[in-house]
Order: sequence, then structure tokens, then C-alpha cells
Amino acid sequence: MGDLCILKIGGSVITQKGIECSARTETMERISEEIERSIKGDLVIVHGAGSFGHIQAEKYDLNSNFDSKGILVTHNAVKELNRIFIDSLSRKGLPIAPVHPMSCVTLEAGRISSFFLEQIKLILENEMIPVLHGDVVFDKSVGVRILSGDQQVTYLAKSLNAKSVGLGSNVDGILVDGKVLEKITPDTFEDFKDNLSGSESVDVTGGMLGKVSELIDLAKSDISSCIFNASQEGGVERFLNGDSIGTIVSSC
Amino acid sequence: MGDLCILKIGGSVITQKGIECSARTETMERISEEIERSIKGDLVIVHGAGSFGHIQAEKYDLNSNFDSKGILVTHNAVKELNRIFIDSLSRKGLPIAPVHPMSCVTLEAGRISSFFLEQIKLILENEMIPVLHGDVVFDKSVGVRILSGDQQVTYLAKSLNAKSVGLGSNVDGILVDGKVLEKITPDTFEDFKDNLSGSESVDVTGGMLGKVSELIDLAKSDISSCIFNASQEGGVERFLNGDSIGTIVSSC
Repeated sequence: MGDLCILKIGGSVITQKGIECSARTETMERISEEIERSIKGDLVIVHGAGSFGHIQAEKYDLNSNFDSKGILVTHNAVKELNRIFIDSLSRKGLPIAPVHPMSCVTLEAGRISSFFLEQIKLILENEMIPVLHGDVVFDKSVGVRILSGDQQVTYLAKSLNAKSVGLGSNVDGILVDGKVLEKITPDTFEDFKDNLSGSESVDVTGGMLGKVSELIDLAKSDISSCIFNASQEGGVERFLNGDSIGTIVSSC
Repeated sequence: MGDLCILKIGGSVITQKGIECSARTETMERISEEIERSIKGDLVIVHGAGSFGHIQAEKYDLNSNFDSKGILVTHNAVKELNRIFIDSLSRKGLPIAPVHPMSCVTLEAGRISSFFLEQIKLILENEMIPVLHGDVVFDKSVGVRILSGDQQVTYLAKSLNAKSVGLGSNVDGILVDGKVLEKITPDTFEDFKDNLSGSESVDVTGGMLGKVSELIDLAKSDISSCIFNASQEGGVERFLNGDSIGTIVSSC
């Protein structure tokens, strides 16, 4: 296996978050082209669920309630998003294999407890691109939970020893006073978190804080990553080309 | 976990084999009702691909040729069949969770080399019904191969220690001289195979011979199974009720 890159595309990038099952197909086309133009070595793509999962998961209250119909509806919705995104990627000639987390991951109290990786390794050995997604996943202690794409990225990066990790979101990176923070480390993250409550100018949603926590965890294992804007034209291409973009999360 | 039953529904039962992606939705409805009426304890369902997979796999020659587009097209087709069948099962109130073999199985020279089962165990613990299907699966030695539902049934029956195993096909069982063979054992199977070439009245297709071989293998592990007609009204219900039906494959 060559150098492995893990690319996450946020649900807010490829879907309209407020409107149930509304895909941003033009954005998908653009991102597919950027990947096709700049892919190097092995690539794993993970995408968020956006309006193909979060709305349904909330409706059935899946994070605190076991509802078998809700589980199926939510899983079907995010698989449909996966199909649409994969259609777009394949039309650019990229060799894609979908991987559905409900079929290959289990959780314990919301954290990954086992993740079947043999198929992902074979997909990569065959020079194809596995595409995973946020999903409803069965949980040993609490029935089911929503497994975010971000948690998968961290797990896969460690398990497959990724060389580069990028989280494409719909913001330019971590913003402080309206400016993009160039770098954050486990040390500066502690200060950063402490200051959060007192500051109104730090644009960190729960989602972004969760994302950064995952990446700080990764940085502690010496794997650097980057949060960048994938909604902006050229963002994915710049990341894949190794250009400096967004906020770097690194060990020091 | 209670007593586990594994029910296979053949691709020829729920699809029209000659016509690409043609589902027998009325048959699915009937089978869903029969399952809903007669389910007892834990159940795993595995279905074949029929015209949602075999036609595509042949078109792209997947059993001897690695074609990434063909892999995706075939996998998407059989997942669509899985979605249609699951829709039908859920409409009867059955709590279903799809499990896609491409995401959780790898092969070596066409035989299962690893199969992630943690999610299936959790689905059963949560009193839901995992529904698997014939699929394109990555193979360590030959790229990809078609993994039949039959091979999955045997593997799952052994791994999960199934108490009953039924293969619902579109014939009444193993036919000899137009009559249903009541029972076949590993010993009688040997004689049976030897006589195959000389007999024109034994209705055993390559498919049926493959099916029986899988079940003979299971019988050697002391798990009996049964080949019955699921195309006929009441077949699935009779099997689930434990009535004598079709051909029994047992160790002695």
C-alpha cells in the first residue's frame, strides 16, 4: 500500500442541512472533479449524513430511543446520499466501493468498539476508493447510536496509518475573532477550550468542537490533520495537493 | 439469544430471473406475511440476487475479470433488491436491519475467509432481523467474486449455531424421477452425485448441486437443513412452523 490519505466531506457541504434529503449535486460534481484531478496514492473518503440522516435521527430520537423503524429509515436515507455521491464520483471515472458502517462497525457507549477493516484493505489493494459515511450503528451498551464520519476518520487514520487527513467542512477552518487559526495542538487546545465559554467571537459549534476533539486525539498519536473549506471551489484540490489550507491540527 | 433460524429466499423466488432488475413484489408481500405470522425466536434472512445481480455480474464477467464499474453496478443492483424486499418485510411490522456482505465479508479463492459477525449478533440481541443477500465481495486471491447466499447460510449457521436452516427455492426440493427426495445425507449424497451424469431424470442444476453441497457440508457439522418451495403459497410458513416440507439434508 502507498501513502494513504483520508478525506472527510462534511454533510453540510454535500447536502442542504435544513431540507430533508436535499443533495447539493453541483457541489458533488465539483468535488468529484477536484478529486479526480488531484488524487495521489491511496484514498479513503468518508462523508457526513447532513439532511439525509440528522433530520431522521432527530425525528425518531435515535440517540436516546431504540426505534427499529427509525433505524431503518435513517440508514436508508444516508445510504441514498452515499449512492448519489458515489454516482457523481464514478461518473468522473473514479473506481469507488461503498462501505456501510452499520454492516461493519459496532459501538460501545457511542464509541467504536469493533470495526471490520479487511474489506477496506482489499479495496485499497485493488486500487479502488472505499467511501464510508455517517450512519446508525448498533451499540453494545445502548442499542444504537449515530456514528459520525469524524469518529470514523480518527479510527481509520490510526488503524490504517494514514499519512494525511483532511476534514472538508463549510467553514475555512477554526475561526477566532473572524480569522482562521493556522494551527492548533493538544496544548493550545486546552487553553482554547477553557476560553470558549467566555468568548463570543470564537466560531466553534458543538459540531466543530467535536470535530476538533477527534483530531486532537489523532494529533496525540502523531497524525496531523487539517480542517478546511470544501464548500469553496478548489478547497479539496488544494488539500489533496498538500497545499497549506485551513487549520492544521498537529502534535506540536 | 433464543433458538436461531436461518431462512434463505432464493433469487428465483423474489425476482424474474431473465428480466434485468424485475422484482416479484407480490411474492415478497406473501412471504413477508408468512414470516410475520409464523416467526419464532431469532431469525436471520438471506436472499439471492436473481435478476438484480446475476445478469450484471455476467455482463461484466465479474467471476473472471476485475471491473470496478461492474462491481459497483452489480452491488448497487442487489442492494436495490434488498431495499425492495426489506420495504415489504417492514410494511408487515417486522423489525429489519440490512447487512451488506461487501461491507463485512472477504473471500479467498471464492470461499469466505473472514465475516464480521458482531453487528449481526447485536441486531439479534436487539430483537431485530438481519437481512443479508448474495453480493460482490472482495477476494484476497482473485480480486472479487460473487458470494452466494447459500455459502453465507452455511457459514452463519455454523458460526451462530443455528437450530434450523431452510432454503426456500422455486422447486419442491431435490427431485428424483419427478418425485421429491425426502432425505439426503452425506453418505447418500455420494451415491447421488455418482449417478448424476447417467441420469436425465434427476432435476439437479449446477445451482441446486452447489446448494446441496453447501448443506451436506452443514450436515457434517450436525446441523440439519431443508430445501423447500418458497414460490408456493404457505411454503415459508410451513417451514417456520417446523412442518415436514421439501427435502431434509441431515447427518444420518
